[in-house]
Amino acid sequence: MSNLLQSFIETNQPLIEQKMDLLIKELKVPSELKEAMAYSIQAGGKRIRPLYTLAVLEELNVQSEDAIVLASTIEMIHTYSLIHDDLPCMDDDDLRRGKPTNHVVFGEALAVLAGDALVTLAFGIIARLNRLTAEQKVQLIDQLSYAAGAEGMVGGQVLDMLGEGKHLTLSELEAVHVNKTGALLSFSILAGGIIANAPSEMMQALKNYAFHIGLAFQIQDDILDIEGTSEQLGKTAGKDALSEKNTYPSILTLDGAKVQLQNQYSLAIEALRTVGLHEGLLVEFANYITKRSN
Amino acid sequence: MSNLLQSFIETNQPLIEQKMDLLIKELKVPSELKEAMAYSIQAGGKRIRPLYTLAVLEELNVQSEDAIVLASTIEMIHTYSLIHDDLPCMDDDDLRRGKPTNHVVFGEALAVLAGDALVTLAFGIIARLNRLTAEQKVQLIDQLSYAAGAEGMVGGQVLDMLGEGKHLTLSELEAVHVNKTGALLSFSILAGGIIANAPSEMMQALKNYAFHIGLAFQIQDDILDIEGTSEQLGKTAGKDALSEKNTYPSILTLDGAKVQLQNQYSLAIEALRTVGLHEGLLVEFANYITKRSN
Repeated sequence: MSNLLQSFIETNQPLIEQKMDLLIKELKVPSELKEAMAYSIQAGGKRIRPLYTLAVLEELNVQSEDAIVLASTIEMIHTYSLIHDDLPCMDDDDLRRGKPTNHVVFGEALAVLAGDALVTLAFGIIARLNRLTAEQKVQLIDQLSYAAGAEGMVGGQVLDMLGEGKHLTLSELEAVHVNKTGALLSFSILAGGIIANAPSEMMQALKNYAFHIGLAFQIQDDILDIEGTSEQLGKTAGKDALSEKNTYPSILTLDGAKVQLQNQYSLAIEALRTVGLHEGLLVEFANYITKRSN
Repeated sequence: MSNLLQSFIETNQPLIEQKMDLLIKELKVPSELKEAMAYSIQAGGKRIRPLYTLAVLEELNVQSEDAIVLASTIEMIHTYSLIHDDLPCMDDDDLRRGKPTNHVVFGEALAVLAGDALVTLAFGIIARLNRLTAEQKVQLIDQLSYAAGAEGMVGGQVLDMLGEGKHLTLSELEAVHVNKTGALLSFSILAGGIIANAPSEMMQALKNYAFHIGLAFQIQDDILDIEGTSEQLGKTAGKDALSEKNTYPSILTLDGAKVQLQNQYSLAIEALRTVGLHEGLLVEFANYITKRSN
């Protein structure tokens, strides 16, 4: 990771985590619910989505005190999706990042409700931001609803479930990822542009960058499952092949997946070049995402 | 039911149901998800919440083409809460209104996701209403997030779960209902005022009316469980006593609950009187809610 990116993350990650803690802490709700919400919010993770929102603003030289709050709501939505995905009726995962999952600690009922509370809270917090215009807030909520909902993340999760045990084509696999993980990642990047009131050419470039970097992220995930060690990943390596999961390597071979990763990376950088952002944080993010080892 | 109210419901209920169908139908999502969402949306019910929004607008003599869409989003939120409440890990109900519940038909995973999709969609639809101002939309989303989230409906569901098997005081029971069912019902009434740009005195009166009528609704529910027949209710009567549930009659005796019902009814009507709405639809709604037999 470059010094530029590392220093950006070291500065901003704690700010995001402190803001999320505060937003949960100030809720007037039953303590059991608050604990269940806080547990998963505090369970760590790379915080890539909220960091991306802040990185776009930094690149556009825009300061916004609402940005960290908005970024926190994206991580809340991401966290709610993990809590629900881990449920016994979904992926049935007992561990996430080495810690017991929400329903293991708080029971399934509270895990469902903690997720429900987080997604509902996110929209309210955006509506209550006090430095953005009402039009900006409406635009953010409009786009977040698409990204997180049936036509985005939730729909992608359904496609993923329906694809289990079937051989997907490359375009079917892409549809899973574009929706399941790409849509919210894209939103986190576009949100920076919306907050900065970026012109439409810039928004289009960010959209293209986000689309390609989202796919690159997923391809690298699939490659790491083959090439990484369990220690590096913090989860069992080689799980995809064992469960006959549809992945880029399973469809394209490992070498084919690496070519595809390089393609998506180049297209992402090319999108940045059209608006003069081909140096700096967004490139560093792309480098990190395609070269990370965990 | 009065002719006035009956004719109002007969006119508006089909409009709400058609609008909800259309909003689901036009989604570009996996057909399995769409079916699961549509199934519970089409599963019937009194549609009291969306009808209330439209009733307030009718009483305030305001026409709004966005009102039916907004009203539909409230019923979507109500529907999502029922889908999640019925899950095996929550109330574990196989039947609702005589039909198999969502997870019985579509499986638990899709039921969780159909609920997630509905709540997320609701906020997006409000953001995309095209006749209200951005400020009105932000206000609606702000209030809906409180009403439906951790500090409202979701928190109420948690309180209800935590109260099982314990003897609650009257104020603890009231806290359950004010949050679990009252908050969203209140929102449906206040939403009419927000759409109509009602002045603050009117908003306060609607808020008071909503608070008392929400409690009246719940007290009558508890009374009906004792006095109604299973045929009238469309569910097993007498279930509350068997499961030693905390109810108004269990805390106040049946007669005490009836006195409390009358009190709440009077306070609701009194709130209407302060703004000259003590004749018409909102009174008829109050009469219907406190005298209904199902």
